[in-house]
Amino acid sequence: MNLVLIAIALGALAVVYGFVTSRQVLSASAGNAKMQEIAGAIQEGAKAYLNRQYSTIGMVGVVVAVIVGVFLGPVSAIGFLIGAILSAVAGYIGMNISVRANVRTAAAAQTSLQAGLTLAFRAGAITGMLVAGLALLAIAVFFYVLIGPMGADPASREVIDALVALAFGASLISIFARLGGGIFTKAADVGADLVGKVEAGIPEDDPRNPAVIADNVGDNVGDCAGMAADLFETYVVTVGATMVLTALLLTDAGDLLLPLMALPLLIGGACIVTSIIGTYFVRLGSSGKAATNVMGAMYKGFLVTAVLSIPLIWFVMQFALGDLGNTINVTENLGNIDVGEPLAEEGTSSTLPFTGWNLFACSVIGLLLTGVIIWITEYYTGTGFRPVRSIAKASETGHGTNVIQGLAISLESTALPTLAIVAAIIATFQLAGLMGIAYAATSMLALAGMVVALDAYGPVTDNAGGIAEMAGLDEGVREKTDLLDAVGNTTKAVTKGYAIGSAGLAALVLFAAYTTDLAEFFPDADVDFSLENPYVIVGLLLGALLPYLFGAMGMTAVGRAAGDVVKDVRAQFREKPGIMDYSEKPDYARTVDLVTKAAIKEMIIPSMLPVLAPIVVYFSILLIAGQENAFAALGALLMGVIVGGLFVALSMTAGGGAWDNAKKYIEDGNHGGKGSEAHKAAVTGDTVGDPYKDTAGPAVNPMIKITNIVALLLLAALAGGGA
Amino acid sequence: MNLVLIAIALGALAVVYGFVTSRQVLSASAGNAKMQEIAGAIQEGAKAYLNRQYSTIGMVGVVVAVIVGVFLGPVSAIGFLIGAILSAVAGYIGMNISVRANVRTAAAAQTSLQAGLTLAFRAGAITGMLVAGLALLAIAVFFYVLIGPMGADPASREVIDALVALAFGASLISIFARLGGGIFTKAADVGADLVGKVEAGIPEDDPRNPAVIADNVGDNVGDCAGMAADLFETYVVTVGATMVLTALLLTDAGDLLLPLMALPLLIGGACIVTSIIGTYFVRLGSSGKAATNVMGAMYKGFLVTAVLSIPLIWFVMQFALGDLGNTINVTENLGNIDVGEPLAEEGTSSTLPFTGWNLFACSVIGLLLTGVIIWITEYYTGTGFRPVRSIAKASETGHGTNVIQGLAISLESTALPTLAIVAAIIATFQLAGLMGIAYAATSMLALAGMVVALDAYGPVTDNAGGIAEMAGLDEGVREKTDLLDAVGNTTKAVTKGYAIGSAGLAALVLFAAYTTDLAEFFPDADVDFSLENPYVIVGLLLGALLPYLFGAMGMTAVGRAAGDVVKDVRAQFREKPGIMDYSEKPDYARTVDLVTKAAIKEMIIPSMLPVLAPIVVYFSILLIAGQENAFAALGALLMGVIVGGLFVALSMTAGGGAWDNAKKYIEDGNHGGKGSEAHKAAVTGDTVGDPYKDTAGPAVNPMIKITNIVALLLLAALAGGGA
Repeated sequence: MNLVLIAIALGALAVVYGFVTSRQVLSASAGNAKMQEIAGAIQEGAKAYLNRQYSTIGMVGVVVAVIVGVFLGPVSAIGFLIGAILSAVAGYIGMNISVRANVRTAAAAQTSLQAGLTLAFRAGAITGMLVAGLALLAIAVFFYVLIGPMGADPASREVIDALVALAFGASLISIFARLGGGIFTKAADVGADLVGKVEAGIPEDDPRNPAVIADNVGDNVGDCAGMAADLFETYVVTVGATMVLTALLLTDAGDLLLPLMALPLLIGGACIVTSIIGTYFVRLGSSGKAATNVMGAMYKGFLVTAVLSIPLIWFVMQFALGDLGNTINVTENLGNIDVGEPLAEEGTSSTLPFTGWNLFACSVIGLLLTGVIIWITEYYTGTGFRPVRSIAKASETGHGTNVIQGLAISLESTALPTLAIVAAIIATFQLAGLMGIAYAATSMLALAGMVVALDAYGPVTDNAGGIAEMAGLDEGVREKTDLLDAVGNTTKAVTKGYAIGSAGLAALVLFAAYTTDLAEFFPDADVDFSLENPYVIVGLLLGALLPYLFGAMGMTAVGRAAGDVVKDVRAQFREKPGIMDYSEKPDYARTVDLVTKAAIKEMIIPSMLPVLAPIVVYFSILLIAGQENAFAALGALLMGVIVGGLFVALSMTAGGGAWDNAKKYIEDGNHGGKGSEAHKAAVTGDTVGDPYKDTAGPAVNPMIKITNIVALLLLAALAGGGA
Repeated sequence: MNLVLIAIALGALAVVYGFVTSRQVLSASAGNAKMQEIAGAIQEGAKAYLNRQYSTIGMVGVVVAVIVGVFLGPVSAIGFLIGAILSAVAGYIGMNISVRANVRTAAAAQTSLQAGLTLAFRAGAITGMLVAGLALLAIAVFFYVLIGPMGADPASREVIDALVALAFGASLISIFARLGGGIFTKAADVGADLVGKVEAGIPEDDPRNPAVIADNVGDNVGDCAGMAADLFETYVVTVGATMVLTALLLTDAGDLLLPLMALPLLIGGACIVTSIIGTYFVRLGSSGKAATNVMGAMYKGFLVTAVLSIPLIWFVMQFALGDLGNTINVTENLGNIDVGEPLAEEGTSSTLPFTGWNLFACSVIGLLLTGVIIWITEYYTGTGFRPVRSIAKASETGHGTNVIQGLAISLESTALPTLAIVAAIIATFQLAGLMGIAYAATSMLALAGMVVALDAYGPVTDNAGGIAEMAGLDEGVREKTDLLDAVGNTTKAVTKGYAIGSAGLAALVLFAAYTTDLAEFFPDADVDFSLENPYVIVGLLLGALLPYLFGAMGMTAVGRAAGDVVKDVRAQFREKPGIMDYSEKPDYARTVDLVTKAAIKEMIIPSMLPVLAPIVVYFSILLIAGQENAFAALGALLMGVIVGGLFVALSMTAGGGAWDNAKKYIEDGNHGGKGSEAHKAAVTGDTVGDPYKDTAGPAVNPMIKITNIVALLLLAALAGGGA
């Protein structure tokens, strides 16, 4: 119990850091009246969108909460609501800071690059710490209340179901926020570019473009609020699933059970401390090109956090388990479940002992994997390496070859992360079976505070550049904000690689929870998960289909909504001919409103896909081939969606980032620079990459987990759990 | 034995049809001297390329034959060589007919549309019947010799290994031919378009373009020879795997065993008869638009074949099995292998009886599935439906939105085929277990003669159009060849959908052969293929990675080779300034030679990926986690490559076809027609779709099967089979 209280205290620390830092950020100068007017419009648009988005999700949420309550009991319903509400809160606060920090960053950039960097990064760090802190608090407080005041047994079905419901709440918000925000931001971005840059021939962020405010709003509701909800969800799901797996697999752990269940929370808490320390190391060095310098400052912060986390995780493990050398017994009384080598004899109850040292090693592997994935993403999306340069070079021969090379890179970019993930799976499984994989995922996610900080920095600097342009600030200021923004592209891509990589591991933990749950709920069911079972093959195929269908829906939605924006902007140019000579002001709010409605409308159906698919597949196969095959097909569906989704998401996010930076690389004066034919081709590639990397790709991430969580809840509901 | 002889006779019938029809085709007028000169250049280039390609493959083939001989014995080595050589022969003859029929089709189109159609379709039918006939002969004669003169037991290991080696030979040629041909055709096409259409502003197929002959050569070596090798391979693999599975699973069938092993051959023979009949129904109707009219003529031929096949398959089954109502016993003495419902009790030997009627129903399902997949592909790539029209419409707002919508369609297009395949798997498995799936795949492939005929028609008409343009024939002739060609785009897409769909089923049969083999070779190995085994997860991830990596390599190769073409064409324009005013002739042969070298060089490494991956994965996991986990990971790799590859191939081929026809739809006068901004955007989409649909996508097909076959051979080698 004390361990959980410590985790709660560390979660609160993150929130306190958020509040203190946000006061610092808000006390900075907000620039001149013109800048404030622009920023005000962005704030208003972002708030209007999020209000509408969350009230729509709220309606869905209430319905789902009632369903959860009916099938799984009131405690699970409350868990669901806590997850949903806190996920929304994290996104909402993050967005609020972001839309205030943007104009202040532009103002600070008038002083110096370091001042702008500090302000933008701090704004990102606030979102980061709030995401990690609120996620940790959500699980820790809920767990504390359940096992303390409510007197539930830590490993009881009530606690397990409630934790899963909590994760479901977070996931459901997350998929809506990711998809809705993603559609909003890219519809506005693509739409604004198509009419503004291409048709009217005005530059990006030109105040005459009616869609320019919508574009800036999009950065905040997509890249900031959407991403915050996504990582809040991944955090809650991963830590929650690790605790659930502990409860299911380590029932023989005796006195160590409660400390083991609290340990994931403590690891999260420890990394909050190191993340906060890390934020103070984000400072410019004195040498090198300015852009690599800014990137270096960011990585310095990350590296300090990751390295410091190793001893601190060791310390909390030692503290919680008493001695890392203590043996931990793994129960193997769950039918056929394979918890690790040596394989248990069939039908007998055996244990696979490992020690705390093994879990510690798995945690370190998780940290390493994070670093490796960040490095790989940087390689595939940074302007200094072969992939981006090959796309830039292919732009010389036209739009077609740019897109072909971009697609080739996006396919290729899946290879190294997959190999890294495979290596981590093998190593952690050898060390501590399924628990090992869970610990690697947990320590990966424990760094979320720092990673989100790097990411949430992106929309702030993106907006700052826009505001500097629209407010007509000095060329020198725009140069500084551009420098800060260029790094933002890479950090955004890096976070997405991290999010999907960690989601892959988290989903494997969820899958393990599914099979373990199944064995507990339906001990008599002889479910054949073997690849030889055709219903497993059917499940794999249907699961792998989901991300394709979901991606198609997301891309189409962006195309459709962007088309609406184009029509609206053209109409405004027609209705107000004075816009082009600045004698009339465009109606920014009208465009924002239009994108808002389109995004909300478009996000509903794709979001329901992962919720309904497991249910439909289960009952279809149940009718055709009976319950055991239905369970097998459902399990295979989960694995199919993980395997298929990982590749779709990795290829889309890395490919999109590479296209974006190939354009930037050309704009830096290579292959003819701005305005050349190569640049035009690169703009096409960037446009294609936009919905890839900011709408469809990242939304696959919560989609994978929702599918898995719905399956877990379905099992519990079928077993009549809690009702 | 007599049954096998009947199959041999029917295979020979197809070859006879090929020779008779080719004399008819060759006796047609070859046009004027100018046309013959152009056709001569194409013939020469195609022959030069195929000679170089096959001698390169020959060297690889000899090395592989020696390896097969060492590890699996001389009979298998001979099987490998027969498969390899006949696959090459099918491609070679097909190409030879195609490069002669093209100019004759152009000449015939001077008379009437029907004359052109008849000639082009007959040329396609020759290739189709040769593919089906030679494939059937390869297996039937080899099988006959093995069990007759050589006295081997039909279900013996020697026969099984030899049949697998035969399939391997066909597959290895196929992947090289598909990839090499695919790189050649698209490098020439994209390269010619980039300099010709975009830079020099001359139309497609303009004789001033030095790459124009290479482009026309490409149609023959890619779409004709490559595709022929591919379907030869799919045919041999599917029919061979069904026979192997029969030998492994139906050992209790008693007297029915030999008829059951011969039955797949007889089904193939029966469908050769119906395919030949079907070719005579390809006639223009009198009503409707001309393009739908041409398409209707093709479908009429296919429909006649498919419908007639139902009673004929019934007849040969009745004939072979004596009575369709006879019960067929399935052996279940192979450890854990799940051969169908009801699940066998663990550890006991049980049988799952089904009758010939069940197998007949499965065959009909295979025919139905073929029809459904053709219909779905037509929907996604035809100009009359939503998908293509949505891409055409998105072209109005630019290159970027065209590509976005095209990618969305390509992702979406995987859904319906997957659902159809899943439905077929479930239905056939319920009817007759694994054998049911195998029979559905066999009857699907039995239609290969007709389907290849539809496909091989494409390059002939494509070339005919090019020759008409280059030889300066009347506008009216060009209009007719364009009409014939427009249909070719759809039939090519349809064949690819069919090939990948049937490959998916065939691969499942191969996977079943792998697990069955494993149980027979290593009865003591307790291999856990369950999704709960992390090595299964690792295998799935690595397997799903293969098509991504392979696709990336294929796309990059096209981009690189196309870049070489661009440079060469630019150089020729510079060196021979008289080309543009027709005072100098471009050096066509130089460009053909350059593309030849590039394609041969680029095809090697990607082709080795599926050959080496199973071996590397097996030995890596063996070192890390022991043999049982290595077998599990290898099995999962096979399933991963099937599941992952199916989606990559389906999305690429359908997406590419949709892009192509969206351009055609705009050229028909929609959205501004030729020369409009929408048309330019659609040209970009078409360029992107080219390597998607003609290089990377279709080559995934043999890749999937090679991975599976290599795994089968690896098992046999590890067991010391035949040596």
